[in-house]
Amino acid sequence: MLLSATMKDIFKRIGIIGKFGDPNVADTLAALVDYLKRRRLEVLLDTSAAERLPPDTAEVLERQALAEAVDLVIVVGGDGTLLNAARSVADAGVPLLGINLGRLGFLADVSPEQMTPELDRILDGNFTAEDRTLLHARVLRGGQVVAESDALNDVVVHKWDIARMIELEVHIDGRLLHTQRSDGIIVSTPTGSTAYALSGGGPILHPTLNAIGLVPICPHTLNNRPIVIGDTAEIEIVLRNGAYTQAQITCDGQINFGLLPEDRVRIRRKGKPLKLIHPPDYDYFGILRAKFRWGEQA
Amino acid sequence: MLLSATMKDIFKRIGIIGKFGDPNVADTLAALVDYLKRRRLEVLLDTSAAERLPPDTAEVLERQALAEAVDLVIVVGGDGTLLNAARSVADAGVPLLGINLGRLGFLADVSPEQMTPELDRILDGNFTAEDRTLLHARVLRGGQVVAESDALNDVVVHKWDIARMIELEVHIDGRLLHTQRSDGIIVSTPTGSTAYALSGGGPILHPTLNAIGLVPICPHTLNNRPIVIGDTAEIEIVLRNGAYTQAQITCDGQINFGLLPEDRVRIRRKGKPLKLIHPPDYDYFGILRAKFRWGEQA
Amino acid sequence: MLLSATMKDIFKRIGIIGKFGDPNVADTLAALVDYLKRRRLEVLLDTSAAERLPPDTAEVLERQALAEAVDLVIVVGGDGTLLNAARSVADAGVPLLGINLGRLGFLADVSPEQMTPELDRILDGNFTAEDRTLLHARVLRGGQVVAESDALNDVVVHKWDIARMIELEVHIDGRLLHTQRSDGIIVSTPTGSTAYALSGGGPILHPTLNAIGLVPICPHTLNNRPIVIGDTAEIEIVLRNGAYTQAQITCDGQINFGLLPEDRVRIRRKGKPLKLIHPPDYDYFGILRAKFRWGEQA
Amino acid sequence: MLLSATMKDIFKRIGIIGKFGDPNVADTLAALVDYLKRRRLEVLLDTSAAERLPPDTAEVLERQALAEAVDLVIVVGGDGTLLNAARSVADAGVPLLGINLGRLGFLADVSPEQMTPELDRILDGNFTAEDRTLLHARVLRGGQVVAESDALNDVVVHKWDIARMIELEVHIDGRLLHTQRSDGIIVSTPTGSTAYALSGGGPILHPTLNAIGLVPICPHTLNNRPIVIGDTAEIEIVLRNGAYTQAQITCDGQINFGLLPEDRVRIRRKGKPLKLIHPPDYDYFGILRAKFRWGEQA
Repeated sequence: MLLSATMKDIFKRIGIIGKFGDPNVADTLAALVDYLKRRRLEVLLDTSAAERLPPDTAEVLERQALAEAVDLVIVVGGDGTLLNAARSVADAGVPLLGINLGRLGFLADVSPEQMTPELDRILDGNFTAEDRTLLHARVLRGGQVVAESDALNDVVVHKWDIARMIELEVHIDGRLLHTQRSDGIIVSTPTGSTAYALSGGGPILHPTLNAIGLVPICPHTLNNRPIVIGDTAEIEIVLRNGAYTQAQITCDGQINFGLLPEDRVRIRRKGKPLKLIHPPDYDYFGILRAKFRWGEQA
Repeated sequence: MLLSATMKDIFKRIGIIGKFGDPNVADTLAALVDYLKRRRLEVLLDTSAAERLPPDTAEVLERQALAEAVDLVIVVGGDGTLLNAARSVADAGVPLLGINLGRLGFLADVSPEQMTPELDRILDGNFTAEDRTLLHARVLRGGQVVAESDALNDVVVHKWDIARMIELEVHIDGRLLHTQRSDGIIVSTPTGSTAYALSGGGPILHPTLNAIGLVPICPHTLNNRPIVIGDTAEIEIVLRNGAYTQAQITCDGQINFGLLPEDRVRIRRKGKPLKLIHPPDYDYFGILRAKFRWGEQA
Repeated sequence: MLLSATMKDIFKRIGIIGKFGDPNVADTLAALVDYLKRRRLEVLLDTSAAERLPPDTAEVLERQALAEAVDLVIVVGGDGTLLNAARSVADAGVPLLGINLGRLGFLADVSPEQMTPELDRILDGNFTAEDRTLLHARVLRGGQVVAESDALNDVVVHKWDIARMIELEVHIDGRLLHTQRSDGIIVSTPTGSTAYALSGGGPILHPTLNAIGLVPICPHTLNNRPIVIGDTAEIEIVLRNGAYTQAQITCDGQINFGLLPEDRVRIRRKGKPLKLIHPPDYDYFGILRAKFRWGEQA
Repeated sequence: MLLSATMKDIFKRIGIIGKFGDPNVADTLAALVDYLKRRRLEVLLDTSAAERLPPDTAEVLERQALAEAVDLVIVVGGDGTLLNAARSVADAGVPLLGINLGRLGFLADVSPEQMTPELDRILDGNFTAEDRTLLHARVLRGGQVVAESDALNDVVVHKWDIARMIELEVHIDGRLLHTQRSDGIIVSTPTGSTAYALSGGGPILHPTLNAIGLVPICPHTLNNRPIVIGDTAEIEIVLRNGAYTQAQITCDGQINFGLLPEDRVRIRRKGKPLKLIHPPDYDYFGILRAKFRWGEQA
């Protein structure tokens, strides 16, 4: 749901999360801290942001603790950094704002050049807040949960190491959907529908849609197609036994866990959504047009 | 929403709608009337069913009047006949049950062979009832509505007669989505997602999803992809002016209307959904597997 | 085949073909005639070029006669104008050079701004000559040829007027390939593979490939895929009988002919290829990258 | 090229290659040896066939030596076994015939049930012989060849182990085609076009086509499409440097080699094609229809 709010001063304690290894991050981080201090807001840093700033710039906390302590987390980096941060702060329910470095992001949509005027508006209470669905995936082995993770983009079950297909059984709310032989399957939120799921041939899902996309990766059977289901469903993916099966689960392209035959991957919508903060004139379709160059012609 | 009901005797007056021109229809119609009369239910016929039965078999009404007069409409034919019937009876809110002739249908899923035992269960109150979204499309010309229609599957705006592309502007809730050059666009319900939209490369949308699919037909720009949006949105498609534009709108592949440049097609979800009645063990995924032969391999 | 030639003075008589209705054409045509006369070359015009130039600028001929009379035809317009010209001059075997107006073309790849230096090089014998396959399509009705046409891009058999699919039987060299239900089929040369066939989901075929692409348009069966066959094959497409069939054949999106049930469309490679002249540093992959914006990212 | 031959007695020494680990193989192998001995033909075995047969059934040789010693190799197994055998015997130029176990194969198209009558016809000189292109791939590291392999289906350069994309630069005959970010690229023969390349969205390439297909795997840029080029081209794929790049090359899904950043994979058509022997009524399109169930409808 898109909610336009006009609530000055609701963001008083600001946490900052930064990306490693880019001089631009340091400059932007320094400018951001400076800006926030001039606005007399309290600033806290995660360790990766702190490493790019002079000692004693601000209090430093681990991400989860930071998320619990602040009213707003500002992420300086790209969509990858924001994905990473989202999984860390999801449980705290604190809203996230992304400042992109370099290219426009789907998630991090404030540019460093526009940072000051955009933050002026946002911190004056003039912003768009948006709920984004997260997924929660668990791996069951012999009835025990052996791994679990959140995902803002996608949970991918895919072959590993060799060029051989895997065989998967997909169940929705306890009913068999189908058995597929493929390189894997992408289970994606609307947020993830413009990421890896799109490369796999999936549709774009509007962020407000209460939906989960299932996109096969290089399916062996030609009539296998992307399917979109409601986001209250429980998805279970069973890795079928096969002599040479080597598969793993990956969340947001960042968290990996090796799977064994007969492992069951259960995926549900996470109870708490991520709150994303955008400038007040946020236009999702405008970002789609810009990212995909719709309308341009050579 | 899937609702399992156990309500004996809620269907007392049964309307029958039949397809033209197939001897199997006559046999199935006669057997159906016979069965219903033996169950001492009141039977009414639409004119197309009446033409295939002896005179004075039962009262005959036009479809809309029939729909107002009965508790349940049974359609004898295929998915095409059911689509047609659905648009006629939608306003009355009467539930629909489909008996397929020949192939299993997505909508008409009771076979003539299983008709008696299935109807026994259904009329005993043991059935699955399902709401299916309908679309309502209006064509505006110079601010006036010049045509309108319901659709259970899809509203298609497409080129007509010549091999030239058309140029469309698509707006969602008053915001520009994009301008596309293509053979046309398919605006589809979840029900329609397994029909023409699938041929155009769209995803399968689960029937319970509150969603509308937008699928470009042969888009000129390669990065144009199917998009799924929430079904509370208003979609406006504007036919851009061009010297040779010849386009039309088609609802469910059955209702056509010619478009002029600058015509605006506005599409919304119809307020009242269609109620579909299925046998109690209705399994949507099972129908998908059967229709698309998932899991079979040569 | 790409052949780099260095043969000064082989182009002495130059025919010019122009596109209607654009003031830029007039300017470019005038500049072109002026340039050629300064080079002391003989200039001939087709009627459409003549209409945009002062009377008595040069001798005027119909296109076929023009093609027979000259050593090189220069087309001023876009790819559409060049397609049209190609079908007219194909039998004469005269080479074609395209000056594009506006956007870079796949076929017309000399810009008006670069016209003088590029023509200097080309007329000095420093150019790339390339053979492009043409198709020849015939419609047989009751054993008689009722229509025929050449095509540089594609021969399309497609439904007409209504939203209903057609059923086609496709034979290759007398063997059944398959029966398909679809909106139609695109039979494409490598040249046409970057045009309508690409919108239909077909692959890009390198111009030097001795191949013909068969691309279904919105096929009803999901496992129907584009097929590429050798260009010595004869393709026969039979329109299957159906109560509501309305179909037509279209060549290069420009020539239409209505089909009746049981009509047979036979398509073969035309014996004589089209000779396209390009600047000496012609780079097909570079044009692909520019047209499809490969490598650019937002 | 399809060549129908009628040359009795050209196959006098027959080599047999078998697949491991399936009792059906043993039965079929025994029946095959028995049949050939009754026809008074000389039989030689590879080690994998010999292991499934009584000791001293026939002379046993390694595959390359076997291929040099015989007039025909019969492979008992599926397409996978035939792919494997093809790479082993390719240099010897000996023709291959495949007896499939279980499902119809694209390559192994004689069923065990039809083995005797089909072999009668084939050994009487009544068969179809077909040339299939092989690829030869080399990996260059710092100018040195560090690995090389033949492939009958495909050479795949793909990411390994992690869910991250790789960046590839593709050159054709020394010209840049494009730089792509994807899960990898499939370089496929016409034979391989119905295998992994098809799962990746590539077209079907007729076996007689002198063509190589380039199919991106889950490309990040939406306008990246399969490309088909002539089979005289040299393809060079350069793995671009990146901090986290882990990629490998795989031939026919069977031979793997790990790649390092800046490695260059060079792929050319192998000089000598594979000769496949089929029954005289071999119908490639018929196999396509059977494998892809074209024409069937639920």
